[in-house]
Amino acid sequence: MEGVSEENKHKIVVAVDESEESMHALSWCLSNLISHESTTTLVLLYVKPPPALYSSFDVAVRMVSTDVITAVEKYGTDMVNSVMQRAEAIYGNVNTEICLTKEALKQVNVERVIGSGEAKDVICTTVEKIRPDTLVMGSHGYGFLKRAFLGSVSEYCAKRVKCPVVIVKHPQDK
Amino acid sequence: MEGVSEENKHKIVVAVDESEESMHALSWCLSNLISHESTTTLVLLYVKPPPALYSSFDVAVRMVSTDVITAVEKYGTDMVNSVMQRAEAIYGNVNTEICLTKEALKQVNVERVIGSGEAKDVICTTVEKIRPDTLVMGSHGYGFLKRAFLGSVSEYCAKRVKCPVVIVKHPQDK
Repeated sequence: MEGVSEENKHKIVVAVDESEESMHALSWCLSNLISHESTTTLVLLYVKPPPALYSSFDVAVRMVSTDVITAVEKYGTDMVNSVMQRAEAIYGNVNTEICLTKEALKQVNVERVIGSGEAKDVICTTVEKIRPDTLVMGSHGYGFLKRAFLGSVSEYCAKRVKCPVVIVKHPQDK
Repeated sequence: MEGVSEENKHKIVVAVDESEESMHALSWCLSNLISHESTTTLVLLYVKPPPALYSSFDVAVRMVSTDVITAVEKYGTDMVNSVMQRAEAIYGNVNTEICLTKEALKQVNVERVIGSGEAKDVICTTVEKIRPDTLVMGSHGYGFLKRAFLGSVSEYCAKRVKCPVVIVKHPQDK
């Protein structure tokens, strides 16, 4: 972009999922890390769960029909769209809800990245690949239900990625 | 402060220690979290190690003389001064080294807080007490030598404190 030096370009990855916490992490990012003094590429990263996490109906999926497989795939796609829409709604409402000037917002380019697999691995791989200045994520397990019990994704990522990591808690915990 | 609403006041705690990493965490904080749109109280938190960490000369301290005790205490005080001076030098050089405008810097109030004890406990207690908006710290063990092997203080704090936590890695690791 013209008039913006390389130093003033920032790339931030925000890992978003179905949780309120990850949406809060996005809000935190928008209100704290976006400045009108720099141009920011905001990467919204969503990781679809691996097939193993549909385990409660894994057998049915394999034994019954393609309709069920299609339903499962549709569920995954709907989830992506739902999360991304919520994330973009937060971004869209930023002027009224969050202390961020319009000037700052103009200099934010939002990108969607959809991964598939184990969230912790996909997040680390994505960060290694696109080398953002900062990774922002919620503190709990990525997603809810089963995924919440698989261990803290944020803890795993904070140990492994090389860029600064921001771990944001749910506001109710404050 | 006049003209600044409560919403635009931020309090950030940066845990500083002898490590280059914590100084890098401070630099990251200054270049990413300070904005001229808000007034920031920047709390530089240094935790002096507990007496047990002078263990290599613990016996001598107890058996020999008050001179040794005085020397140990002086070592602690010197360390505090050294770390704080380095931290404040980074803050002082911020205009030339980091992309931060003078306007933004004018709205930063720097406070020193010196704690004593186990770093992880003191940091968590301090955060609980002063309730900052964000805690910023290096990723490795607090301090060097023995303290580095006592486990990751940042990991401990990220799990326990309720505010967003930024964990910054050493730039050489990038």
